[in-house]
Amino acid sequence: MSRTRVAKMSKLYAPTLKEDPAEAELASHKLMLRAGMIRKIASGLYSYLPLAWRSIHKIEDICRDEMDGIGAQEMLAPILTSAELWEESGRIGAYGPELMRLQDRHDRTFCLGPTHEETFTDLVRNELKSYKQLPVTLYQIQDKFRDELRPRFGLMRGREFIMKDAYSFSATQESLQEVYEDMKGAYARYCERCGLKALPVAADSGEIGGDSSIEYMALADAGEASLVWCDCGFAADDEAASTTVAVSEGPGTGELERVHTPGLGTIEAVAEFFGFPENGTRKSLALVDGEGKPVVAIVPGDHELNEIKAAKLFGDYHLMTDEELEQHGLFKGFIGPVNLPEGVRLVCDRSLEMSKSWTCGANEVDYHFTGACPGRDFTVDAWEDLVTVHAGDPCPHCGKPLKGGRGIECGQVFQIGQDKYAAKMGATFADENGREQPFYMGCYGIGISRTLAAIVEQHHDEHGIIWPVSVAPYEVSVISLDKKGEAFDTAAELAEAFAAEDIDVVFDDRAERAGVKFADNDLMGFPYQVVVGKRGLAAGTVEVKNRSTGERLNVAVADVVAEVAAIVKAARA
Amino acid sequence: MSRTRVAKMSKLYAPTLKEDPAEAELASHKLMLRAGMIRKIASGLYSYLPLAWRSIHKIEDICRDEMDGIGAQEMLAPILTSAELWEESGRIGAYGPELMRLQDRHDRTFCLGPTHEETFTDLVRNELKSYKQLPVTLYQIQDKFRDELRPRFGLMRGREFIMKDAYSFSATQESLQEVYEDMKGAYARYCERCGLKALPVAADSGEIGGDSSIEYMALADAGEASLVWCDCGFAADDEAASTTVAVSEGPGTGELERVHTPGLGTIEAVAEFFGFPENGTRKSLALVDGEGKPVVAIVPGDHELNEIKAAKLFGDYHLMTDEELEQHGLFKGFIGPVNLPEGVRLVCDRSLEMSKSWTCGANEVDYHFTGACPGRDFTVDAWEDLVTVHAGDPCPHCGKPLKGGRGIECGQVFQIGQDKYAAKMGATFADENGREQPFYMGCYGIGISRTLAAIVEQHHDEHGIIWPVSVAPYEVSVISLDKKGEAFDTAAELAEAFAAEDIDVVFDDRAERAGVKFADNDLMGFPYQVVVGKRGLAAGTVEVKNRSTGERLNVAVADVVAEVAAIVKAARA
Repeated sequence: MSRTRVAKMSKLYAPTLKEDPAEAELASHKLMLRAGMIRKIASGLYSYLPLAWRSIHKIEDICRDEMDGIGAQEMLAPILTSAELWEESGRIGAYGPELMRLQDRHDRTFCLGPTHEETFTDLVRNELKSYKQLPVTLYQIQDKFRDELRPRFGLMRGREFIMKDAYSFSATQESLQEVYEDMKGAYARYCERCGLKALPVAADSGEIGGDSSIEYMALADAGEASLVWCDCGFAADDEAASTTVAVSEGPGTGELERVHTPGLGTIEAVAEFFGFPENGTRKSLALVDGEGKPVVAIVPGDHELNEIKAAKLFGDYHLMTDEELEQHGLFKGFIGPVNLPEGVRLVCDRSLEMSKSWTCGANEVDYHFTGACPGRDFTVDAWEDLVTVHAGDPCPHCGKPLKGGRGIECGQVFQIGQDKYAAKMGATFADENGREQPFYMGCYGIGISRTLAAIVEQHHDEHGIIWPVSVAPYEVSVISLDKKGEAFDTAAELAEAFAAEDIDVVFDDRAERAGVKFADNDLMGFPYQVVVGKRGLAAGTVEVKNRSTGERLNVAVADVVAEVAAIVKAARA
Repeated sequence: MSRTRVAKMSKLYAPTLKEDPAEAELASHKLMLRAGMIRKIASGLYSYLPLAWRSIHKIEDICRDEMDGIGAQEMLAPILTSAELWEESGRIGAYGPELMRLQDRHDRTFCLGPTHEETFTDLVRNELKSYKQLPVTLYQIQDKFRDELRPRFGLMRGREFIMKDAYSFSATQESLQEVYEDMKGAYARYCERCGLKALPVAADSGEIGGDSSIEYMALADAGEASLVWCDCGFAADDEAASTTVAVSEGPGTGELERVHTPGLGTIEAVAEFFGFPENGTRKSLALVDGEGKPVVAIVPGDHELNEIKAAKLFGDYHLMTDEELEQHGLFKGFIGPVNLPEGVRLVCDRSLEMSKSWTCGANEVDYHFTGACPGRDFTVDAWEDLVTVHAGDPCPHCGKPLKGGRGIECGQVFQIGQDKYAAKMGATFADENGREQPFYMGCYGIGISRTLAAIVEQHHDEHGIIWPVSVAPYEVSVISLDKKGEAFDTAAELAEAFAAEDIDVVFDDRAERAGVKFADNDLMGFPYQVVVGKRGLAAGTVEVKNRSTGERLNVAVADVVAEVAAIVKAARA
C-alpha cells in the first residue's frame, strides 16, 4: 500500500516567480505561474508541475467518487478516434478547424477527441443488446484537444485540457431523465466538495433543445459568461434568461401627446428631459430580418435587445444602416410604435404588454410621444421575449430581484436523446416488445483542469492562493525558521508526525529568510502553516496560521499535530 | 473522502465472450477480450473497460508509490509537443513514420509524444540553474503514441499505450549513477508488487553505450525477446549476452586427418557420422562483409552465429550466395579453416581459442578434417565473440549453466548523460566552480498497459485470468447461487461487509445459472470467490474458493469477512 510521505520544499519542483508574468491576465493564470504550479510549453499547452498535479489528482478523485456514487463506471478510450466514426455521426463536417486531425502511416485520418460520443456509441452498439442491460453510464478522465483560435487565460482556455466525460445509455426517456437527475446531484456535490461556489444554469441549449442541458458555472469576475440568479435557486445565463421585466409607466396624462424633443436622440437624454427613469421610456430598434424585411423591436428603455433571442425570432438579422433607415422612412433616435410606415412589422417585449402609457419616438425628427397606448394608438404585431435580463429584474420563479455576475463553465449535462448519435450510428437495443430502438443517450462533461483554475479564481488574495483543504496540494506546511538546530529538528519531527497521521504535509526546510518562506507558503496557499522557531519552542509552542482567515495561534508542540490533523480531516470533502 | 462501494455484476460493463476471438493470438489478448476487459477501437487502439481500468489504476498506484519513494515528483506535460523542440534535439529526423505528427490551424507541426525527453529538458532548462538544486527527477503517467507498422498482440504492441516516463537531471555522473541505482531498486519492487517475475537485463544499448541501460523483462512464453539468465543474478538478451561457450574437442588422434564424408554437408550429419556431440564439431559460415570482402566465421557446432554481433564486426554483411561461394573457391557444407583460399579472412569464436582438435570442413567436396589445430594447421585472423548464447551455456559470472526463456519488456532505465539532449538543447546549470555544464540526464520508462498484459501472460490457466491480489480489479467476488431469498440476501450483506472492510468487492447478483457464474468469475480471475448457497447456509457456512490454488474451503458465515479480508490485506503489495 502506498503511504503518505513528507515532501521537502528544498527538493520540490515548484520554481516560483517574484513578479507577475506579463503574459497573464487572470488571477488563476498569474498565481499558478508565480507559485511554480504550471508552465507554458506552447500556445494553449501547459505542463502541470507537481503542486498543480497534486491538486488535479484530488479534483479527479472527488469527481470519480461522485461518478462511482451514482453507478457510473470508469474506463478509458483511446484519444485517437477514427474519422470514419465521425463521418457516421456527421460531426466531422460540423466541427471545423477546432478538431485536430492527423493521418497515420497508412493515410487513414484520425481525430484527437474533443469529446467521445462516437467512440462510446460505437463501443456499446454491438454489446448492449437488451433493455434489461440498461441503463449503463460510462465515464473517463482524459486529456482532450481543441484547437482554439485564441488560446488564453492559462488553464481556462487551452488546446489540451483534462476532462471527465460521461455517456449514458437508457431504454426510455424516463430512464434518461433519472440518470440526468442523478448527474445533477453529483455535479452539485462535486462543485461543493471542490470548494467551488457554482450555479446550475439552464443552458441556451441551441440544437439540443428544451430544458435538457444545464451548465455548472463557478462564480468569478473572470468568467466568460454573464449570469443572473436568485436565492430561490433560479439561475441562468443572461443571454438565455427570460423574465417579465418590471416597467414603469411614462410621464404625461395617459393621452397621446406630441412633445418637441430637439436633438434628444438617446434614451438617456429623453429620460433626463422628462425627469423620469429610463425604465419609463421605450427603446425602439430598427432591424432588417433574415428575409430582408423591416422590423421595429421595442424594449424597456433600460434594457437591451438580446441578440440570441432576436436571432431566434428574426433569423440572420441586422440593425438598419443609415441608408436602410432612410429607405424605410425611419429617423434615427426618433423611432417609435405610432405612425410606423406601412410594411414595418412591430414586435414588442412582452413585459410591455400591460403598460398603457409609453414614452417613445414619434417617427418624426425631434419629436417624441408620451402616453402612447398599445391597441388605441398603435397595433403590435407580436409580443415576444426580447430582452437581456439584468441584475435587479424580478426572478421569474419567485419575483425577488435577481443577482448578477460572471461565471466560469466547469461542467455541463445534456440529454442528447436518440437522434443525434444512436440513430445515426445504428446503435440500438431490443425494447420490452422486442423492437429495435436507438438508445436514449445523455452526455456529461466536467472540465477538471478548468475546475482547478476556477478554484484559484474564487480562492485567492493579494498574497496568493488560498486552497480549500479538499484540493490543496499539501494540507499542512511545517516551516522551520532555522536551517538547523532544535527548531529545524522539531519541525522535521512534526512533519513526520503529520505524515504518520496521513496528512499531506510539506516541510519548508530551505535555507531561506523567514520572510521568503512566509511569502512562498502564502503564495502556494497551503491551508495550515505550522511555524517552528526557537523563541516559541522556549515556551513549548509553535505558531499555527490559518491561510484563509489569517488567524495565528500559539499551540503547544505536544498538541499541534493532533489538533491540526483533526481540523484538516474534518475539512476534507 | 471516497469510500469503497460494492459493485454489482448485473450492472458491470464487462461484456464477456464465450469463444476465443479469432483476432487474438496471445493469452493476455484473448483473455482480456473474453473477460470483457478491453475492446479494439481501431488497429492498435484499445479501450480499457471498467475491469481493466481498475487494474491499470492499481498498477499506476504501485508505480507512483515507488517513484515517490525515491523522491521522484509526479507532474503532467502536454501530449502535444512542438516539432521545434524535436528539431533542437535532432530526433525528428531519426524517428521516422512511427512518430505521429499533425499540423495545427496555424500550420505549425506538433508531435504526439512517444517519449518526452525534449519537453522535460525544455521545462527545466531555464529554471534549474545551480548544482545546488540538483538532482531533480520528474515523472508522469500518460498516454503515449507510436505509429507501429504492425500493431498486434492486444495491449502488448499498440499505437496508443500508457507509459510512466521519468527524467532525471544531475550535476555529476556520480549523482546520475545514484539516481539510476535508486530507479533500479524501484523498478525491481514495482515488478514484484505487480506480481511479475521479471529480470533486469543489460540491454544492447546501441547508441546509448556501455552498461548504462537495463531492460526489465517479464518472463513469458509470449515474449518478443529471447533471454538467458542465472540464479546468481546474471541476465541478458541472448542477442547481447556474451560468455565463453564450453566446447568439447573433436574425435581423432589430435593429428590432422582428412576423412571422406560423402554428402555430409550438415553439422548434424557430421556429428552422427563421427558418433560425437555437435558441440565437438565446428560450424563454418562464409560471409561477404560490409566492404565486399570474403570472411569465414567459425563457431561451435551447436551454436549459431549471432547476427547483431556479426553486424558489429562485419558491417552490413551477408551470407555468401552459391555464386559467391564458387567465386571465392568455397564449397557449401565443407568449408573450414584449413587450406582456405587466399584473401579469405578467418574469424573464430573466442570460445574455440583453447581447443586444439577441431572437426571441420576440409574446403574440398565430401571431405572433413579431424584434429585440426589452430596455429599449427591454420592461422586465425581474429578471435571474437560471435555466438548467440544458449540455455545451458556457462554463466559468465558464476559459470553455472544458464537458464533460457522469453521475456516481455515492461520497463527500461537509461543513463543518457550530457550529450544527447542537454548539450544539444543548451540545458545547463552552474557547477560548483560557476561553470555552465549540461545536465547529466537519465530517463526511465515503464509500460503500464503492457505490464497489465504481462501480468495476464504470467497469471492464467485454461479457465481464465488469475489476478495477483495487488492488481486484481476486485479482490473478492461474492456469488449468490440464488436470485433471491436467504442466499441472495446473505450474499448482499457479505458484500457490503467486505466493502466496509475496504475490500474491493463485486457481488455476482445475476440471474444466471451457477455454472455460468463460476465460469465468468474464473475467467475474470477474482482472487477469492465467496459462494453463498442454501445448502451451505443451512450448515451456517459459505464456500471460499482460492482462484490461484483452486482450493475450496467451507467457512462459517460469521467469520468469512474477517478471515478473507485479513488474507487479502496481507496479500496487497
